Amino acid sequence: MDNKRTELDKLGEFGLIDHLTEKFKLKNKSSVLGVGDDAAIIEANDKEYFLISTDTLLEGIHFDLMYMPLKHLGYKAVAVNVSDICAMNGKAEQITVSIAVSNRFPVEALEELYDGIKVACENFQVDLVGGDTSSSLSGLAISITVVGRVEKDKVVKRSGAKENDLVVVSGDLGGAYVGLQVLEREKAVYKANPDIQPDLSGHDYIVGRQLKPEARVDIIKFLDELGVVPTAMIDVSDGLASEVLHICKSSEVGCHIYDEKVPIDGATSMTAIDFNLDPNTCALNGGEDYELLFTIDQKDYDKIKGNPHMTVIGHITDKNDGRYYVDKNGSAIELRAQGWNHFED
Amino acid sequence: MDNKRTELDKLGEFGLIDHLTEKFKLKNKSSVLGVGDDAAIIEANDKEYFLISTDTLLEGIHFDLMYMPLKHLGYKAVAVNVSDICAMNGKAEQITVSIAVSNRFPVEALEELYDGIKVACENFQVDLVGGDTSSSLSGLAISITVVGRVEKDKVVKRSGAKENDLVVVSGDLGGAYVGLQVLEREKAVYKANPDIQPDLSGHDYIVGRQLKPEARVDIIKFLDELGVVPTAMIDVSDGLASEVLHICKSSEVGCHIYDEKVPIDGATSMTAIDFNLDPNTCALNGGEDYELLFTIDQKDYDKIKGNPHMTVIGHITDKNDGRYYVDKNGSAIELRAQGWNHFED
Repeated sequence: MDNKRTELDKLGEFGLIDHLTEKFKLKNKSSVLGVGDDAAIIEANDKEYFLISTDTLLEGIHFDLMYMPLKHLGYKAVAVNVSDICAMNGKAEQITVSIAVSNRFPVEALEELYDGIKVACENFQVDLVGGDTSSSLSGLAISITVVGRVEKDKVVKRSGAKENDLVVVSGDLGGAYVGLQVLEREKAVYKANPDIQPDLSGHDYIVGRQLKPEARVDIIKFLDELGVVPTAMIDVSDGLASEVLHICKSSEVGCHIYDEKVPIDGATSMTAIDFNLDPNTCALNGGEDYELLFTIDQKDYDKIKGNPHMTVIGHITDKNDGRYYVDKNGSAIELRAQGWNHFED
Repeated sequence: MDNKRTELDKLGEFGLIDHLTEKFKLKNKSSVLGVGDDAAIIEANDKEYFLISTDTLLEGIHFDLMYMPLKHLGYKAVAVNVSDICAMNGKAEQITVSIAVSNRFPVEALEELYDGIKVACENFQVDLVGGDTSSSLSGLAISITVVGRVEKDKVVKRSGAKENDLVVVSGDLGGAYVGLQVLEREKAVYKANPDIQPDLSGHDYIVGRQLKPEARVDIIKFLDELGVVPTAMIDVSDGLASEVLHICKSSEVGCHIYDEKVPIDGATSMTAIDFNLDPNTCALNGGEDYELLFTIDQKDYDKIKGNPHMTVIGHITDKNDGRYYVDKNGSAIELRAQGWNHFED
């Protein structure tokens, strides 16, 4: 190691993956698209591609069993993987599940986890086809790989956005992050005084957004029915800003995103303000909403106009015009990804 | 949880997976074979199936960084996954790699790990197409998913063995386990006195078997060239006894395995004896050899006869005849899987 030591947080999560995988080249002709999108693309047959993606959830990093019921955790672990297949405009069909678990968990705890996985499999119509279970020295880790399928002429990557395309997002944003703040507050209250019961009343929506997110398979179905193939797509796992920048970087374009267009639920806004947080900042940097962010050609605007599940939040510009977040007064600030960086202390 | 608590080690690793997944049914028509073989089988096109398998390696459970160089670990993590595709008579083509790592590792450590992954990708002709990297609270975890392909008329499952088939194993067995004993001994010596350098001289072969196992892609190629499609196959990850029993259980057959036929390298035998271990017991229960265990129809015997890479070690019998290990004196003892049970203390 030549005595050189570079700390992991120097590169950030995406920088680290890029750095570690930059020397790998695709050699098999069945490998259509490798690292760098929501899922890899693999040749299946004349008409279809396979899609494959992996996500790992770790106790203490991605979830806290103090407030995350195991059944919800199982559901969420599947949903976030299915969401990656949605982001390629595909349909998830199979998953494998790897669990590492310490002796402190009884069989009954894993049964709850698998109950949640089963409900998700039924909701998203995916089959559990494999996986393994092993012990860990501490905590619980769930690694899920999802396999999906998409017609070749409908696959959507991060890289297809072009100037003048509209930027669209499904559902609403920021809820999962604000829900997490509520859960963290109640955890702190509980730790200070275990006799006080957690008070989540009135926070069903945002707490649900955090604990039991959905993969937007319905949006993929809508788009198909409307005859719209997005030019680029990604799911919102790390926050809107980070995802917009991923699309801009992969597509080599710029963008204008409009502050007042970003869809935020009333419950999210009100609770954010209670926490002295700016709702828009929660939407931009919060993450874990698992909505779909996509770009469409302007000619498709009429098809999605008025659809309550989709909101146009901006448009794509030339690369040299930069990537901007425009506020109500028309002043533009450069978009920066804050998102998550798990390697920071 | 109804206050009931069943400890994980009650069920064992395979019993636990069976228990957790028994309620899951395959529903998508593209899901050809689910949990319970070395890889799942997914419909690809008229001629081919897609194969998928996941394996996770955890620090402190599956490897010890005191003696496992990170580059070897990266190589091994890929090899053990490729081995699962070999066990289906398929060709591995893509992998995804999920890494969870604590702050105690610098970027340079992950570079070494990925160097090993890269060498394995080149040797086994697989492409790295995806994955993620996140922090862990302690230690290193590597979860790899491998995707492969096989012609439909050549896919081999655990379940196809039939009475009178021959039981064949590639290479030799027990080396990885005995190699581990050497490494553990030198670790103990080093811990007692860090000034003493580890002495691995004369143990290259068995230490290599433990630290840098190979997936037997060459055997799959040989079998193809010889025109042999095994009737059942599995890779030897948990020890010969456990794997033979998996084939017998899936195929609903019995077997006779002959003690003196089991191929054991001279270096393995000699070192086993130095450790007061019976070499045959190491082969039966040691595991991690990643050789291929398969059954062939008797009509194919002439094709593999005399091949130095393959040894006939027994034959398949009727289920009611039981599963026996026959020693040099002709006395038969019932085969029992001891293998690994990671959940035991």
